[in-house]
Amino acid sequence: MINHLYDTSLSLLTDLYQLTMAYGYWKSGKAEQEAVFNLYFRKHPFGGGFTVACGLSSAISYLNEYGLSKEDINFLRTLTGSDGQPLFEEGFLEYLKNLKLKCDVAAVPEGTVVFPNEPLLRISGPILQCQLLETPLLNLINFQTLIATKAARMRLIAPDDTLLEFGLRRAQGPDGGMTASRSAYIGGFDATSNVLAGKLYGIPVKGTHAHSWVMSFDSELESFKTYAKFLPNNVTLLVDTYDTIQGVKNAIIVGNQLRQRGQDLGGIRLDSGDLAYLSIEARRLLDAAGFEKTSIVASNDLDEYIMASLKDQGAKIDVWGVGTKLATAYDQPALGGVYKLAALKNEKGEWENKVKLSEQTIKTSTPGIQQVRRFRNDRGFMADMIFDVRDENSTEKSMMIDPYDFTRQRTFEHKYEFEDLLQPIFRAGKQSYVIPTIEETKLRVQQQLSQLHSGTKRFVNPHTYPVGLEKKLFDTKTSLILKLRGGK
Amino acid sequence: MINHLYDTSLSLLTDLYQLTMAYGYWKSGKAEQEAVFNLYFRKHPFGGGFTVACGLSSAISYLNEYGLSKEDINFLRTLTGSDGQPLFEEGFLEYLKNLKLKCDVAAVPEGTVVFPNEPLLRISGPILQCQLLETPLLNLINFQTLIATKAARMRLIAPDDTLLEFGLRRAQGPDGGMTASRSAYIGGFDATSNVLAGKLYGIPVKGTHAHSWVMSFDSELESFKTYAKFLPNNVTLLVDTYDTIQGVKNAIIVGNQLRQRGQDLGGIRLDSGDLAYLSIEARRLLDAAGFEKTSIVASNDLDEYIMASLKDQGAKIDVWGVGTKLATAYDQPALGGVYKLAALKNEKGEWENKVKLSEQTIKTSTPGIQQVRRFRNDRGFMADMIFDVRDENSTEKSMMIDPYDFTRQRTFEHKYEFEDLLQPIFRAGKQSYVIPTIEETKLRVQQQLSQLHSGTKRFVNPHTYPVGLEKKLFDTKTSLILKLRGGK
Repeated sequence: MINHLYDTSLSLLTDLYQLTMAYGYWKSGKAEQEAVFNLYFRKHPFGGGFTVACGLSSAISYLNEYGLSKEDINFLRTLTGSDGQPLFEEGFLEYLKNLKLKCDVAAVPEGTVVFPNEPLLRISGPILQCQLLETPLLNLINFQTLIATKAARMRLIAPDDTLLEFGLRRAQGPDGGMTASRSAYIGGFDATSNVLAGKLYGIPVKGTHAHSWVMSFDSELESFKTYAKFLPNNVTLLVDTYDTIQGVKNAIIVGNQLRQRGQDLGGIRLDSGDLAYLSIEARRLLDAAGFEKTSIVASNDLDEYIMASLKDQGAKIDVWGVGTKLATAYDQPALGGVYKLAALKNEKGEWENKVKLSEQTIKTSTPGIQQVRRFRNDRGFMADMIFDVRDENSTEKSMMIDPYDFTRQRTFEHKYEFEDLLQPIFRAGKQSYVIPTIEETKLRVQQQLSQLHSGTKRFVNPHTYPVGLEKKLFDTKTSLILKLRGGK
Repeated sequence: MINHLYDTSLSLLTDLYQLTMAYGYWKSGKAEQEAVFNLYFRKHPFGGGFTVACGLSSAISYLNEYGLSKEDINFLRTLTGSDGQPLFEEGFLEYLKNLKLKCDVAAVPEGTVVFPNEPLLRISGPILQCQLLETPLLNLINFQTLIATKAARMRLIAPDDTLLEFGLRRAQGPDGGMTASRSAYIGGFDATSNVLAGKLYGIPVKGTHAHSWVMSFDSELESFKTYAKFLPNNVTLLVDTYDTIQGVKNAIIVGNQLRQRGQDLGGIRLDSGDLAYLSIEARRLLDAAGFEKTSIVASNDLDEYIMASLKDQGAKIDVWGVGTKLATAYDQPALGGVYKLAALKNEKGEWENKVKLSEQTIKTSTPGIQQVRRFRNDRGFMADMIFDVRDENSTEKSMMIDPYDFTRQRTFEHKYEFEDLLQPIFRAGKQSYVIPTIEETKLRVQQQLSQLHSGTKRFVNPHTYPVGLEKKLFDTKTSLILKLRGGK
């Protein structure tokens, strides 16, 4: 399976209905009709107050490499309908074979804090092409955004500690693990245990030893001595294989031997038991023996809530090894990102706004060719306003309306600084954007978070950061909904 | 990122500590010391009573392709410790470059139902090699086993319906999606929306159209007519873009047109709203119009609990499209599989049993070279007994002891049929096992489940299937624990 996946083009990494719709567009002469789709989410993950956008660089790779191979076409030729006849005619397969993407893509840079209903990506171009890209773009953006956000939450709890990502073994497949390592690093982690992520993404890698190392020797002390002898510049000893306190004492013995050789005990690691109690005891023992600088690493099913609780209990933990709960975003393992049609050019060459109704107001989409304007003052980000780029001139003095409560309105004069979040990424299928380095993106996350009010970053009942629709866009949306509810 | 990952060797897809331990083993002359490791889990996922083993064929691919490339070695050469000096010396890198796996691997075939503490894989060979494989094997087995189990639970709820996997867009990365599609098919699903999974794994692919198709036309009816005209052998119409009941009526209009052309309306799909109410209403409308065979597809955040609830409410759903909750195993997105040292050959060539203690009894590992014997009678599987293969002759009449309550004992005479679950997969690094086809594996899951008592398959408080340690193994474990608790 792995070998299959890793040798193949990923252009068929999409839902079949994207291809059957593409076929329908092609057959009905609509393949080249210009459309605008937005990729956005409706609710922050983890009950939080912010989300960190991530995954754009993967999306850029995907778009640059897009193209159906001969094998892809041959596979599509084998697909049949209920009558056993082919789903697709040859002319369409030929069309797909020659397809070159010519979409425009605008997107929020990776590492930007984003909020519900704001487009993270805006894809415009032939409707057939936009449609084929829905599934892979959601796949790439949803998961990476989720993990970067999870990591950022953990960084908020431990701003000055070292955070290590240890999730590979419990991740959702090899790529789940790789992607988690990269997204966690961007979100605020310092290093990963995943060696391949180190090789491919330049992320620092960390790790020392497991229980099996200790168990493979006749005694714990012998195992520690052997480790310290051969890897003196990487000594963090796992002390809980048999008895944690005795393990700390053995580590101190080895630490003293290291010092006699001009080396030092880097750290000890606790991987079970009461981490608050044990870390305090271990710190006491280490300090009493003169190992004040030896760090205490903790692991074992940690997440931001347990970390916060351990901090509250006065745990003496300097380094946090976080695995499963980070790499899978355990308490909410999927971000519900969606990709919705927002505008379509009619035969006269005019844009028509499009909206998807729903019984649930929150699920009704916003029409138009959207941009997000973020206002700020010297205390940080103030509010985001979603507007239609065709109304840009009318936004000089902008009224913003809460899409879920139209009585909440606020006018922003443009005396405030602002920034438009969506940047051009592809123009007519050609990349027009230089991808920042992973270090720049990582730094951007922390800069962005520093601009948010602390209430927005709180885990419990966070303050809702204001995001409104610019008045004209609000009116467009309202009249479109009323027309649809009345008419169809 | 994708392009990087998919061009690379995966041999460094491991935790750094596996490599630092490997270095320590090599430096201390233990690299070739024979060891036995077991891969197992401690608790069924989803609070269930069974687990479906999956992932072995990926593990076999991984092992067959194992080998560090020149680039891998060059990367390892760059790693440094706290003093800025290299972690590894050249001789070790040379050793790794020339490393050929020579482990024996025994494993439970994919599609077998398994229980806590039973080894799914048993790896024996040089400790250095066993250690390097820990992380990738866990990564591959944990996730696939999790998803196959989730899918099997959904199949139990809807034994006669069609189950479609729609998870790609919310899956944890491209490989998360691919792996989920394959594991869901094995666990009991009929088809996937994921075209690449169809191409690579031969899984049937299904799909028709999304809301955007409907929105791209001036009216829903026009969109339905156009779809039915061009894809008459694949007509399942999504009826909830504007108003579900009106959508069903429009589908019936199109169905009548199809019939005039000698074709038919395959199905309608509901993707929002009250699926119980709407499916009953839709069924009534369809039946009244003579479309008794038109199927009703439901999607929208389904899982086995919602499916069961809809069944209880009399929902008229024939086809279930399950996405996020399946592809990410939403309510428990990781299986806690572990990989523990169980035996080590000493310098005299004798095996020594090894155990990892823990404050929590459930986390204490079982020593020895284990095999699992499954007893059955004509009503199905009765119990599993974990024994040490070196005691095989003494198991002719076997006493089995509950590892968590030694007063629960039961003697199995071998008048019952039995089967030993672990089969040889690799001998000295060479594959000795023919991988069944995906269809055979899929069939095996259903055959296995049919052998389980219904109480074991219940979702709420399932009956605990009996798994015991053979008496001699139980005694070995107990005396080892007592020695460790007393001694170290």
